[in-house]
Amino acid sequence: MLSAAARARLTVVLVGARNPQNIGAAARALHDFGFSDLRIVNDFAAPFEAAQLEASSAVAASTVMQNARRFGSLAEAIAGCHLIVGTTAVGERELTQPVLPLQLAAPILLQALGGPSMTTASSSAWVGSGESSVALLFGSEKTGLTTEQLSHCSLLTTIPLFAPENSRHLSMNLGQAVAVCLYELTRDGLEGAKELPVLHEAPATADDRERLMHLLLDVMQATGYTRRFPANANEPLVRQLVQQLGSTHREAMTWMGILRQVLWRETK
Amino acid sequence: MLSAAARARLTVVLVGARNPQNIGAAARALHDFGFSDLRIVNDFAAPFEAAQLEASSAVAASTVMQNARRFGSLAEAIAGCHLIVGTTAVGERELTQPVLPLQLAAPILLQALGGPSMTTASSSAWVGSGESSVALLFGSEKTGLTTEQLSHCSLLTTIPLFAPENSRHLSMNLGQAVAVCLYELTRDGLEGAKELPVLHEAPATADDRERLMHLLLDVMQATGYTRRFPANANEPLVRQLVQQLGSTHREAMTWMGILRQVLWRETK
Repeated sequence: MLSAAARARLTVVLVGARNPQNIGAAARALHDFGFSDLRIVNDFAAPFEAAQLEASSAVAASTVMQNARRFGSLAEAIAGCHLIVGTTAVGERELTQPVLPLQLAAPILLQALGGPSMTTASSSAWVGSGESSVALLFGSEKTGLTTEQLSHCSLLTTIPLFAPENSRHLSMNLGQAVAVCLYELTRDGLEGAKELPVLHEAPATADDRERLMHLLLDVMQATGYTRRFPANANEPLVRQLVQQLGSTHREAMTWMGILRQVLWRETK
Repeated sequence: MLSAAARARLTVVLVGARNPQNIGAAARALHDFGFSDLRIVNDFAAPFEAAQLEASSAVAASTVMQNARRFGSLAEAIAGCHLIVGTTAVGERELTQPVLPLQLAAPILLQALGGPSMTTASSSAWVGSGESSVALLFGSEKTGLTTEQLSHCSLLTTIPLFAPENSRHLSMNLGQAVAVCLYELTRDGLEGAKELPVLHEAPATADDRERLMHLLLDVMQATGYTRRFPANANEPLVRQLVQQLGSTHREAMTWMGILRQVLWRETK
């Protein structure tokens, strides 16, 4: 059984969802499986506001929807999170990251949600009060997560669907996909996760990685690398490059120190 | 892996569904997980016809919806089936039959769908030509399956939901419930695992990492980082630092290019 504390550490992020009914269905799935933190990334407020309006009449999931927050960018929505998991329909684009079927990705999420070290007093400094540590991302109904959005992810997962020979439509309805993922997370409880090794250091956050990406871009620029290999210098590619740079916050800080030193030499 | 023959033996029956969108969502879930036989039990035809009309524009699940059949009574709908499984939200009514959580009911359904006896000649008499043998029943959005409807079932199952102390709303959205049940039925075969994209790039090797470590040590030395933070400049620590640097060989090469550029600037 997932503890209340573990449940509180999961954030579901809907990126670019357009249909208020889908947002409402996602909120309902969170409620049904005992989760509460829903974040919506959207340039415009209309779908979010419509979903909140509808939710006020739907008793079941209204608390989740009322507490949902809207963000203008994905980076802001996941800034405090440590493990960023993107859901993707296989076959939609050429992926450069490995994709795990949901059944195999779930234990990794559960470990991050429930690792005992997360709850010790010594670690309370980095697990902020009620701050979520795992973000589960769902893309828009039309396109799923874009390549740029996928580049924020440390792990990709897909719900294995039935794929006959000539099929092309391999994506699920958004509300159903959220429900299936949350079902899988709660299906086994934490039994398997307890055996997994515990990370004793604070993990690096999405925010750490964003800062690393910008530092590295600066270094590439300052040293002339960007001029020589412009194709390697675009943001999504560099974000992917620093994705696993430092699995712990301390390692990420060391990397930043190294990069700053390079920059200082270049500009002194 | 559920065979095509086994999939053909499952019938999903929606009893008294009122919302055409829910019927459509159920059809889509069948399509997504590779099932095809949807039956609707309803006194009146309106929701069924509206769902068929909507489905004609939804490419994905339209075949399932077009082939769906409407019945006037539950008994007619399940007449040819052998194992009747009812889904129910726990706590809605006093049950006189035992209820298995979905995880434990699934193996029983799978055995009935795919059990070897199903395919032997001797059993062909009762597995009619293409006749389904397992019926999975879902009740109406408002009430779920009634006591009368549950009495048709040989087995009851429930999707385990999160139930805080004083909760009363323990039922799922119909389309989401269908999706979760069909996911559970196909989850163990790692359905679609074959279709998962193969990472087309060569993974980074230990050798790549060793070269990266030495390059990084050189950069730390050349830029003066080593002098400022000697504790961070020992080999094991730096090897750890580059451990996940580039999950693919190409990414590792990009990193080497960046580090070489820094070195070149330092020594030119």
